[in-house]
Amino acid sequence: MMTPLATTTMERKTDLNSMDAGQAMYGWMSELYPICRSITGNGVRETLRRIAEIIPLQIREIPSGTKVFDWTVPREWNIRDAWVKDSTGKRIIDFRRCNLHVVNYSIPVHRRMSLQELKPHLHSLPDCPEWIPYRTSYYDETWGFCLAHRELEALQDGEYEVCVDATLENGHLSYGEFVLPGRSSDEILISSHICHPSLCNDNLSGIVVAAALASSLRSTTRRYSYRFLFAPGTIGAITWLAVNADAVSRIRSGIVLAGIGDSAPLTYKKSRRANTEIDRAMEQALRHSGAPHGLVDFSPYGYDERQYCSPGFDLAVGRLSRAPHGQFPEYHTSADNLAFVSPASLMSSLRVCLDAFFILENDCFYWNLNPKCEPQLGKRGLYGAISRTMDSHCNEMAMLWTLNLSDGQHSLLDIAERSGLSFNTIRQAATLLREYKLLREISG
Amino acid sequence: MMTPLATTTMERKTDLNSMDAGQAMYGWMSELYPICRSITGNGVRETLRRIAEIIPLQIREIPSGTKVFDWTVPREWNIRDAWVKDSTGKRIIDFRRCNLHVVNYSIPVHRRMSLQELKPHLHSLPDCPEWIPYRTSYYDETWGFCLAHRELEALQDGEYEVCVDATLENGHLSYGEFVLPGRSSDEILISSHICHPSLCNDNLSGIVVAAALASSLRSTTRRYSYRFLFAPGTIGAITWLAVNADAVSRIRSGIVLAGIGDSAPLTYKKSRRANTEIDRAMEQALRHSGAPHGLVDFSPYGYDERQYCSPGFDLAVGRLSRAPHGQFPEYHTSADNLAFVSPASLMSSLRVCLDAFFILENDCFYWNLNPKCEPQLGKRGLYGAISRTMDSHCNEMAMLWTLNLSDGQHSLLDIAERSGLSFNTIRQAATLLREYKLLREISG
Amino acid sequence: MMTPLATTTMERKTDLNSMDAGQAMYGWMSELYPICRSITGNGVRETLRRIAEIIPLQIREIPSGTKVFDWTVPREWNIRDAWVKDSTGKRIIDFRRCNLHVVNYSIPVHRRMSLQELKPHLHSLPDCPEWIPYRTSYYDETWGFCLAHRELEALQDGEYEVCVDATLENGHLSYGEFVLPGRSSDEILISSHICHPSLCNDNLSGIVVAAALASSLRSTTRRYSYRFLFAPGTIGAITWLAVNADAVSRIRSGIVLAGIGDSAPLTYKKSRRANTEIDRAMEQALRHSGAPHGLVDFSPYGYDERQYCSPGFDLAVGRLSRAPHGQFPEYHTSADNLAFVSPASLMSSLRVCLDAFFILENDCFYWNLNPKCEPQLGKRGLYGAISRTMDSHCNEMAMLWTLNLSDGQHSLLDIAERSGLSFNTIRQAATLLREYKLLREISG
Repeated sequence: MMTPLATTTMERKTDLNSMDAGQAMYGWMSELYPICRSITGNGVRETLRRIAEIIPLQIREIPSGTKVFDWTVPREWNIRDAWVKDSTGKRIIDFRRCNLHVVNYSIPVHRRMSLQELKPHLHSLPDCPEWIPYRTSYYDETWGFCLAHRELEALQDGEYEVCVDATLENGHLSYGEFVLPGRSSDEILISSHICHPSLCNDNLSGIVVAAALASSLRSTTRRYSYRFLFAPGTIGAITWLAVNADAVSRIRSGIVLAGIGDSAPLTYKKSRRANTEIDRAMEQALRHSGAPHGLVDFSPYGYDERQYCSPGFDLAVGRLSRAPHGQFPEYHTSADNLAFVSPASLMSSLRVCLDAFFILENDCFYWNLNPKCEPQLGKRGLYGAISRTMDSHCNEMAMLWTLNLSDGQHSLLDIAERSGLSFNTIRQAATLLREYKLLREISG
Repeated sequence: MMTPLATTTMERKTDLNSMDAGQAMYGWMSELYPICRSITGNGVRETLRRIAEIIPLQIREIPSGTKVFDWTVPREWNIRDAWVKDSTGKRIIDFRRCNLHVVNYSIPVHRRMSLQELKPHLHSLPDCPEWIPYRTSYYDETWGFCLAHRELEALQDGEYEVCVDATLENGHLSYGEFVLPGRSSDEILISSHICHPSLCNDNLSGIVVAAALASSLRSTTRRYSYRFLFAPGTIGAITWLAVNADAVSRIRSGIVLAGIGDSAPLTYKKSRRANTEIDRAMEQALRHSGAPHGLVDFSPYGYDERQYCSPGFDLAVGRLSRAPHGQFPEYHTSADNLAFVSPASLMSSLRVCLDAFFILENDCFYWNLNPKCEPQLGKRGLYGAISRTMDSHCNEMAMLWTLNLSDGQHSLLDIAERSGLSFNTIRQAATLLREYKLLREISG
Repeated sequence: MMTPLATTTMERKTDLNSMDAGQAMYGWMSELYPICRSITGNGVRETLRRIAEIIPLQIREIPSGTKVFDWTVPREWNIRDAWVKDSTGKRIIDFRRCNLHVVNYSIPVHRRMSLQELKPHLHSLPDCPEWIPYRTSYYDETWGFCLAHRELEALQDGEYEVCVDATLENGHLSYGEFVLPGRSSDEILISSHICHPSLCNDNLSGIVVAAALASSLRSTTRRYSYRFLFAPGTIGAITWLAVNADAVSRIRSGIVLAGIGDSAPLTYKKSRRANTEIDRAMEQALRHSGAPHGLVDFSPYGYDERQYCSPGFDLAVGRLSRAPHGQFPEYHTSADNLAFVSPASLMSSLRVCLDAFFILENDCFYWNLNPKCEPQLGKRGLYGAISRTMDSHCNEMAMLWTLNLSDGQHSLLDIAERSGLSFNTIRQAATLLREYKLLREISG
């Protein structure tokens, strides 16, 4: 049973207890870790059922064979067991010990064969001889096993019995959605892929941070609607885009969460359009996060942003990650385990998303009601009265910038960017100035 | 009696004798230094009267209580004397010795009190124990004295007699203006604040350079009109903007002069719009000044550019300064004295302003009358005949650039910027090419 | 007899044998080297006649005195012999030994004179005492001799006999043209100057590379027409522009070839408009040439790009060079000889031009026929099947970029620039994707 998160509000200082939330996400991940997921099948269903213990997920089932743009929803893969036994009948490779041992989406097989015949079906990592690789055969009808290179090398000649006790039959592709309605029907999409088996960073980290975001945002009043999508990578995103044209047309911004549990700095990959609201909000949130971070341009390689940013959609969807996609040694191996991720990393990933959403929720335009010369801040106690500490200087600068640029052409985010101050500092100044009748919000 | 400056012309090599002008400005400053100025009162009037000995200033008086945008013209402060006497009747703090000793705009007081009672009214600089700080209480009805920290620490317990012999009554705010008409009614504003008492860099330096600019420009024929404004900081600029709507509408460009007598490199702070004529002219003048210099972006903090660049005006007004505003130790202390500034610094500040105005006065567009291929410079003796020194190469390049870009879309300043050559080099080339009928000026 | 080059096609791997082509160009240069060229006269005619052995050049003759914009076609200069004899009758300076010995375009003279009288007519290079300088007197009616400074210093007092056996009479200015028609009448201009006598880099290198380009492009099918112009520097380009208004109006892009035989890195000087097709194609070709290279902005100084980029034409014509114009010691001296240039340098200059033309010829826009989500590359064998080598990754990225940006707004060159992949890589991907019906070319 996965325990829901205490909810929060869209205020800077949220009710979210950092320690608790990080531990909660890590706990969810530990529970999801053993499940053997694939692009279809009961592993995905079980994963969605568990997430639904945290947030009221709606689970959708799309029949095998459904045409989705250039693709077709594949058959459903369900696995009960898989092993290789040596001549003594001992399981020397055992799916039950680690689900990475079987090539994901392997076709059923049960045969005896020599080592020579078996070997082409065995995959290992000579450079990392202790790790089991993660391999798939989604679009290639074959079977195979993955194992540590050290174990592969120890195999003796002789007869082996091989079994993949799986089915590959017409069924459904499953995905889960949860929509939090806001004042506007414009939607912010949060997308994470759920097709990987026992791999923590890629992408249980994305799943649990998305679930925590949904938990956190539930009790807030929201300007925008938020759609959380948990779907298999590539075919899941494509399927969702194909069968949800109405929802697609409401997406204003979005973010793909993938690989955000490891210890590398957070990196935001921009949308194809590069300078949209979400791109600017994520950059602003990262810049003022106080932590090292990266910004990279869009490229058509990576996770499901490939689909959202295909030219026929060109959505304002970026991606948040940590270690660069495919470029860390643990990527797609058994070393991407519970030790490779941490509650603290999950928590800071969650935080930067909340910060960016906070910006989207609160950005707006103001009119300076005294546009000719500065208003006299001193007589209102806004200015000279404050002792000249750094903080008050920062607040004073924030007030001056906000007054100076509140000319109907600069939003708070524009002002934050030009001044170099954080969005939150500018927003606090704007709130104060509005209380003193020095600003009027321009209704968007 | 302040001696006017020999006038000059808007030619590159002006009649201005550098040594004389620097010394003259320094002399004026020495004469203005002892006067106790404030935002209102006779110190300001006396200062304006002295400036009027150099240039025929018109002095304006705006009554206390006049509403000026969000502000109100304050009462007039006049001080005759101020002191603290010890129990022996000895003046241990004496306004007559240095007018920084009294907190500027202090309300009248005459009382006996213990050291303990007196101390909250005493201000000093523990980090610079020999210097007297400069403090004001414009918008806070109180009184106080400033003194060297060394002297503060030497005070003995006992009874003290305190006197601020000042008046704070309805009267006027005074400012001075001088307008030099040009062919165009478009105005270039030169603004300096005159509210600081015995402080040389901030801002007697701005006052005397502005006066020297006015002197220098008087005898020239001018494209633009020039308005010189000498007014108290903040409230003076606000008052002027409030009561001179017609003049404001004629301001084409402007510059605030503040803190330009010290030895730090000249730094130009751009206008809010950042790429206006004055911004480009100042950048060009500094770039080719042969001296280190800085360029900084607009921020809504500083001197009276804050008011000129408020969103309801958004004037093309930048600021010329040297040591960064508020960031040098002598700032607002008795160490900002006649030794902190120099005739040479005043002179190079004056020079760079004249150079920038020269660009504004002389920038224009030409048509190349032989736009197809280069004209044959050699047959006109413009080219091959010149010996191949660096200077002639520079002149040759200036001719080629000017011909190449005189297509009706590039002004001389555009050409200077693209070529990397100085405006003056380009202008000399254009003048020569026009004499040889190779260019025709496009009447603006 | 100059041997034509084996022809090539506009494919990446051309039939052009690099060794052969480099040697062929070097051979042509060796044959052209001894000819005494000038801006007019038989040396130019002989040069054009030799080039016509390689490509069917049309030779044009424009009469002396013809007005060409601000210029006039000059008289024709023909020289038979020139020498200075010492008192013993020995030729101590002899045009027949090296045609640089006579100031090019010298007026006829035959006189006896003292060394003192002779000296003002002698030119040498004190800093490079072994080298003979190259000097001209096109627009100054005088005569002179050039010699090694070492030889100048060895001259003894005494009587000298001086003879320049030349004629300077009305005649013609000669230039050669060769046009390769393409499907479009839009022309690519390749221009090289032919007025320099025995100087290899400046500009026999430009002449032979232009001739090799013409040879290479002859047998191809071409989108654009190519015009090769061999004309005297400055006056030749001006004359051509003046008497070929129709052809000028068809120039879409062009390149001046000058100084491309030495060993310095190739440098492209952008056109005045800076971001035209040829500018982008040359930058792309150089960037992916695998060799160090430079890019410099336009300036109105250099070779005939000065005329093509004059404001009345403003053609998209850049320049390819190696060592910076006028800034290498061998420039305009006898040291710019056959040892200063190499077949390999000529060959890589030729290659980069062909690469840039290849881009102009092949750039186009495609529609992605599956713009919504990625098409399934795997089921077409375009994707997963390829082994994961770097090359296949590059091809895969090229396919993904090409699909992602083929939205009717990005040409192949745009895609190459944004992706950082080479134009050829992108083009190969586009060709493959078109074969698989994933792209449709937008007819330009």
